Amino acid sequence: MSTTTGRRVGRPRATQRPDSGMSARDELLLAAAELFTTSGYAATTTRLVAESAGMRQATMYHYFSGKEDLLAELLESTVAPSLTLALRLLADDARPAEERLWELCRADVELLCGGRHNLGALYLLPEVRGERFTSFHRVRADLKAAYGKLLAATAAGGALDRGERVLRTDLVFGLIEGVILVHRSDPARPLGAFAGATADAALRIVGCSPTGPCP
Amino acid sequence: MSTTTGRRVGRPRATQRPDSGMSARDELLLAAAELFTTSGYAATTTRLVAESAGMRQATMYHYFSGKEDLLAELLESTVAPSLTLALRLLADDARPAEERLWELCRADVELLCGGRHNLGALYLLPEVRGERFTSFHRVRADLKAAYGKLLAATAAGGALDRGERVLRTDLVFGLIEGVILVHRSDPARPLGAFAGATADAALRIVGCSPTGPCP
Repeated sequence: MSTTTGRRVGRPRATQRPDSGMSARDELLLAAAELFTTSGYAATTTRLVAESAGMRQATMYHYFSGKEDLLAELLESTVAPSLTLALRLLADDARPAEERLWELCRADVELLCGGRHNLGALYLLPEVRGERFTSFHRVRADLKAAYGKLLAATAAGGALDRGERVLRTDLVFGLIEGVILVHRSDPARPLGAFAGATADAALRIVGCSPTGPCP
Repeated sequence: MSTTTGRRVGRPRATQRPDSGMSARDELLLAAAELFTTSGYAATTTRLVAESAGMRQATMYHYFSGKEDLLAELLESTVAPSLTLALRLLADDARPAEERLWELCRADVELLCGGRHNLGALYLLPEVRGERFTSFHRVRADLKAAYGKLLAATAAGGALDRGERVLRTDLVFGLIEGVILVHRSDPARPLGAFAGATADAALRIVGCSPTGPCP
């Protein structure tokens, strides 16, 4: 058995990390998420990402075109599942809109605050204004539009004029994204109850009076 | 008249920039704010900050010990004025607490969103966890505590149990900081009305029913 530590040839992945059962792609995303949120985006090189995932840099480029590509994919992962849920909830019009909006808020807070890494913190990077992030911004805008439609379908939201509805939608969206910072200050607080309380607060902003789990 | 472009000796400041009437210290902070929020914190060097302020790097070190020092000072400028206002409002107990909480929320949103640069975006930098930022975190915690005291002094807030009051304070604080992102998506919206609407929403979260400018 050879113990050479020289360059491996013909192997797409080195094996420095125990096999996690994750795909190489997901391992790279996880490594990038960790480095971007702890060391910072600018301080992280693609080489560091590859090394941290136990791969060579060349292998990384097989999956991602570069650092922006990794960041864009991570950012989309913070909004795409909520958009999928929002579209499902919008279609489910047999249920009261208040209940559906509450559920969207709760699930969105759990997604934003519940990951192993605080990816929401990456929203504010100046780099995220670039073209590579058009798709993230579009999905985020679609998600906000879905919030707006659910809000308009509630009794309190439907009674508002259009300008006021847009404003309340923005405020609800601001609250949901804003609690990322709150959660980071007190990560020990149980997330489920916190997400529910945030959803209660969102419905209060719309103008619904909260009673029980679906205010 | 000499046209030499060599190194100036015995002058603390170069004169590449027209005199703004600002102190050298404030010019450095302004240059840092611009660079940190547009190019990013990690990508900005102290040399770039000095050059952008029309000074030599050595001159910059006369005012600030380094990049962290500039960032810490900028971050404190996003919370210190609101803390001063909050302490003044807390002492002014002849006025209804609802009115005072509303005013604090409105002023805080105007401060966070109204500056030439979106300094709130720097809250989420991983670097801000470091020791140099203890003072910023303390001022921010004091500000949150003042929000909590005003909230407890409102009729609706006073009727809540302690745990629920802490939670609502966190949610109000999350909303105020969260609207930074909302404002960035739509910077053309008049800030005064937006700040007032955010203050209305904050009082709704506490449980006050909004009527007129002081809900």
